[in-house]
Amino acid sequence: MPDIVATHRLTDEGARKMLDAATQKAREIGKPVVIAIVDAGGALVAFLRMEGSRFLTSRPTIKKAVTAASHRLPTGFLKPEAELRMVLGMDNRLTNLPGGLPIVVGGEVIGGIGIGGAPPDEDIVIAEAALAALDR
Amino acid sequence: MPDIVATHRLTDEGARKMLDAATQKAREIGKPVVIAIVDAGGALVAFLRMEGSRFLTSRPTIKKAVTAASHRLPTGFLKPEAELRMVLGMDNRLTNLPGGLPIVVGGEVIGGIGIGGAPPDEDIVIAEAALAALDR
Amino acid sequence: MPDIVATHRLTDEGARKMLDAATQKAREIGKPVVIAIVDAGGALVAFLRMEGSRFLTSRPTIKKAVTAASHRLPTGFLKPEAELRMVLGMDNRLTNLPGGLPIVVGGEVIGGIGIGGAPPDEDIVIAEAALAALDR
Amino acid sequence: MPDIVATHRLTDEGARKMLDAATQKAREIGKPVVIAIVDAGGALVAFLRMEGSRFLTSRPTIKKAVTAASHRLPTGFLKPEAELRMVLGMDNRLTNLPGGLPIVVGGEVIGGIGIGGAPPDEDIVIAEAALAALDR
Repeated sequence: MPDIVATHRLTDEGARKMLDAATQKAREIGKPVVIAIVDAGGALVAFLRMEGSRFLTSRPTIKKAVTAASHRLPTGFLKPEAELRMVLGMDNRLTNLPGGLPIVVGGEVIGGIGIGGAPPDEDIVIAEAALAALDR
Repeated sequence: MPDIVATHRLTDEGARKMLDAATQKAREIGKPVVIAIVDAGGALVAFLRMEGSRFLTSRPTIKKAVTAASHRLPTGFLKPEAELRMVLGMDNRLTNLPGGLPIVVGGEVIGGIGIGGAPPDEDIVIAEAALAALDR
Repeated sequence: MPDIVATHRLTDEGARKMLDAATQKAREIGKPVVIAIVDAGGALVAFLRMEGSRFLTSRPTIKKAVTAASHRLPTGFLKPEAELRMVLGMDNRLTNLPGGLPIVVGGEVIGGIGIGGAPPDEDIVIAEAALAALDR
Repeated sequence: MPDIVATHRLTDEGARKMLDAATQKAREIGKPVVIAIVDAGGALVAFLRMEGSRFLTSRPTIKKAVTAASHRLPTGFLKPEAELRMVLGMDNRLTNLPGGLPIVVGGEVIGGIGIGGAPPDEDIVIAEAALAALDR
């Protein structure tokens, strides 16, 4: 294995396109949401809490993005019986709530997006719309 | 005094105009920054960490926005000898670093914006550009 | 600005070469140290606390690595009068102690290394020996 | 009982042999993992996050090592109905996730190793490979 490998990083330009596309899709559906985008290490890159969404939704939405970035999977992958111990083991940074998707570039995960505030299937649709806006 | 008074609230539409204007001004100046916008209660509404800024800058930038929203003043208003005791008294949510401005509508503070990562005077110029973008 | 930019990532292979080189240099000098290596987002990649070093040294050593990775500079860059407010603003994740160096590949910072436990100039010499071991 | 008793301590030399053996076994199996080694007091001695493992895995892996060192048992020893109250009682430093093993020398526990990121039975196999590398 080499000492250093090539990878990619999402820019603020890309993050803002994702915010825009998510907002537009959320308005189309008529569900105000919170949008969070994190980098490959789970640090926040962009965030928007839409008018009409709930302020307590901010935390789990950031966790959705972090979980998808870390585990390179859409959130909700844990079996119900494993959920609590994993959440506690990871100091409550992980969530099993659906609505988080990894940001994949060339087969590699470079971050995550979380959407919160709509029903789970619509959170996912909004996250997918955000990913589709990226110029890869 | 009445039991209830009228107030205003920043929407995500307004927050995004501020993100856009701050980003544009930061690029013009050539200094990548972190941008944070909070509501009248100090909760995050919008956030963007520009490509080239530093990840440790995120926390103090959010604090600048929170401090400006709470105290209804540009940050940096504390005398140096009062700074440490006030920061500690407020559980380190307040900062005296310049670069936070209140968002004022009709003489009323409805939130705060913080900019971090450029020299203090440029952080302030970028925050002012963001405020100027708001359609009041 | 593009939505996505190319970058690099340190592998565990590279991190272990750095641990080895730092350990060897520390033995040569005769000063047992703590060694911490973090990625571009400040998350721990590798850590070694040498026999004879002090257990309280672990925390500041990790902070040296995090600070160098975030600010893309050798630690110790803050003026003494700015130190406390910056440390508090960044929730005590930043340190101004010398002994942290950015890991630079092709002009880009992909992480940081911190060394703690020897006098500052020797911490730096050990960190430099670790960086020199990387096959870039 | 005497006032003071003899004991043993793992050196960085021993810890690095363990990191090497764990890494090699993990590669053999084809599962990238996080490796954490702590002393008899639960303080971190060595850590390595392998390329391809998940950053959220770092915390539970350190907890596995800490739990095994404290309780002198392989992790996973709690009955499911006792798990939550014990985890909470111990301020979430204990985990019941399998993959932590005590480091035993002459019948005495001198630390713990935690492996995280592979399925539980493979985490244990990798931890055992690390223990086997120690020259006792």
